Amino acid sequence: MTPARLTLLTDFGTADGYAAAMAGVIAAAVPQVVIDHASHDIDPGDIVTAALTLSRYAFLYPEGTVHLVVVDPGVGTQRRALAGLVNGRCFVAPDNGVLTRVLAAADDGRLVELDESAVPPPSGRPGGTSATFHGRDLFAPAAALLARGEALEALGSPVSDPVLLPLSEPTRGSAGIRGAVVQVDRFGNLVTDVPGSWLEGVSSPEVRVEGRRAGPFCRTYGDVEPGSLLTLVGSLGLLEISVRDGSATDRLNAGRGSRVTVVGD
Amino acid sequence: MTPARLTLLTDFGTADGYAAAMAGVIAAAVPQVVIDHASHDIDPGDIVTAALTLSRYAFLYPEGTVHLVVVDPGVGTQRRALAGLVNGRCFVAPDNGVLTRVLAAADDGRLVELDESAVPPPSGRPGGTSATFHGRDLFAPAAALLARGEALEALGSPVSDPVLLPLSEPTRGSAGIRGAVVQVDRFGNLVTDVPGSWLEGVSSPEVRVEGRRAGPFCRTYGDVEPGSLLTLVGSLGLLEISVRDGSATDRLNAGRGSRVTVVGD
Amino acid sequence: MTPARLTLLTDFGTADGYAAAMAGVIAAAVPQVVIDHASHDIDPGDIVTAALTLSRYAFLYPEGTVHLVVVDPGVGTQRRALAGLVNGRCFVAPDNGVLTRVLAAADDGRLVELDESAVPPPSGRPGGTSATFHGRDLFAPAAALLARGEALEALGSPVSDPVLLPLSEPTRGSAGIRGAVVQVDRFGNLVTDVPGSWLEGVSSPEVRVEGRRAGPFCRTYGDVEPGSLLTLVGSLGLLEISVRDGSATDRLNAGRGSRVTVVGD
Repeated sequence: MTPARLTLLTDFGTADGYAAAMAGVIAAAVPQVVIDHASHDIDPGDIVTAALTLSRYAFLYPEGTVHLVVVDPGVGTQRRALAGLVNGRCFVAPDNGVLTRVLAAADDGRLVELDESAVPPPSGRPGGTSATFHGRDLFAPAAALLARGEALEALGSPVSDPVLLPLSEPTRGSAGIRGAVVQVDRFGNLVTDVPGSWLEGVSSPEVRVEGRRAGPFCRTYGDVEPGSLLTLVGSLGLLEISVRDGSATDRLNAGRGSRVTVVGD
Repeated sequence: MTPARLTLLTDFGTADGYAAAMAGVIAAAVPQVVIDHASHDIDPGDIVTAALTLSRYAFLYPEGTVHLVVVDPGVGTQRRALAGLVNGRCFVAPDNGVLTRVLAAADDGRLVELDESAVPPPSGRPGGTSATFHGRDLFAPAAALLARGEALEALGSPVSDPVLLPLSEPTRGSAGIRGAVVQVDRFGNLVTDVPGSWLEGVSSPEVRVEGRRAGPFCRTYGDVEPGSLLTLVGSLGLLEISVRDGSATDRLNAGRGSRVTVVGD
Repeated sequence: MTPARLTLLTDFGTADGYAAAMAGVIAAAVPQVVIDHASHDIDPGDIVTAALTLSRYAFLYPEGTVHLVVVDPGVGTQRRALAGLVNGRCFVAPDNGVLTRVLAAADDGRLVELDESAVPPPSGRPGGTSATFHGRDLFAPAAALLARGEALEALGSPVSDPVLLPLSEPTRGSAGIRGAVVQVDRFGNLVTDVPGSWLEGVSSPEVRVEGRRAGPFCRTYGDVEPGSLLTLVGSLGLLEISVRDGSATDRLNAGRGSRVTVVGD
């Protein structure tokens, strides 16, 4: 039988042992589970990045995978806790918008609000029950239940109005395309919100970031010399601005939120 | 059958390949093992933090888990190497105090000093036998033996005097509670050594860090406005000082060792 | 049956989700696979370090392990993509020299150039086919095929001229040994290219780094006082320069490429 598979995405780092505590809770409840640490390096509280990061891998994992996300600056407030089944994958996360992009990309899905009485807290916690570590005391046990095959509906009541992040909305018209940078990745690439497909019909597209020219529109890095700016359709299907063997964020002094325009000739 | 499960905690980082070398040794000896990397981001040689981090997850993992800890500034000195069985979990670590907190929290346990002649070194090492990488050449093979079900006593002779860190000792009396900050976590929370239960009998407790007021005593973050200081019982059951959506270590200019006092009205 | 085991080494970091995307592709193709994240913290594009890091663990893992390496500054250029079977372990990597050290250490091995038509891209990618993320779209699917037991030759045509890094060549003669620092590890140790065995015949060896004395030649750290420089044979079997409980790179202001000499008396 294939073991249950579960991924973890947090802003906890690893050095404090918070992420390992969650993994331990899950391992104790589901002995055969395989836990894949997607990342614990999200900047503290950066829900916007976590939502984008999650969308990069959530649906590449097989159906039945449980994706647990704890980027949760609202822990200890009235924010709801969610579980969901979206395109055949399970999700457990705070209701703060971190699921926005997977929900936007989904064909189908349903969500429930976690009912604490339906999710027994773990035993063996060093400090007993806590009001500040829902990752360990609520989200991980809920994820373990789903990994064991528990039905979503057993964990809480349906939710139809999850919190959604206000995704930036690129526009296109006779004056060209307008969008924004939504992420700077580790390599300094500027990922925009402009669908790559929008550039198909543009003749000799000229891309600018905050008014500065962003290099020729190419298929891939090898189309320009090392050190040169270029624009291309990246691995999310979105327009990206890059420097071959360099950093576009440094070169253009641009970052998340920077305005992007595309005009044809 | 449930696969053996093993966690790794080191100060090695990952980029040099030292942690992966340990994982490889274990995988070669126990093909079915599931290895969970708890953290490799402990500051080099920081035994105090490693001991606290380990205590956050050790007993949340199921019985039978092997916890391997290599934060070992004394490698290549006369310090002993230990293996232990504590509350049903196995531990392998240098005898430098890194097990202090799990031993303090244990109901039962026994330790042995690893006998190098009872732990065959791994084959396939790029440089042959080494006197400086016990993680690969002694601790990982010992952990693998335990993961395969070898009896603790087969690995060495009993030890009854493990090195223990001098844990700070909070006090309470008519003048109030006195304690200290024992850790600053990734979010800037100040974790103290004061048991949260001690505050139950204190009327309107006023917490100070190095004489500065640390905010009202609350149940959780949502009880104050964003940006405000508060004190609460954290996930280890210890008094913590936090700033909601902010950093208490920055706000109070306090860190490990800072003095903490609590007085009632 | 023993599950397939696969390691991942990249310069992707984890926060962007690129590494998790690769893991997801592999998990979807090989449900029983155990994925071990060796490191994602290689400096962007640092092939030299990646080659050394890989050599620290590749042959410690059991035969049949698939080692996937994506440190690939040449993605999107004409560089080839490789798969190989070396000493019973499988490797998948760009043809940029990252396999240099495992090939140098191997008794036997064979390589093929990945044929994109033999490696179906994964389904479920958020942006469809991409020319910039071969880790997800080519390397991970190829590694998954090998983890499922596909024959190497089914993935492409033989290659006999892989790109190899120009490894530094230490020399020895009547004037002594000359070599270089090849890596600075997390602890500030200076790993050189001088085989430790070369020092066996040297009487009272004096090691210098860029002309500065590097401490006595010892067996291990415990042979000197804390804070003292020493030289020893490290865990790769190579001469290393260290400071006990300190950093040799800081003490000697030396790093990768620094010249090392050894003379006897």
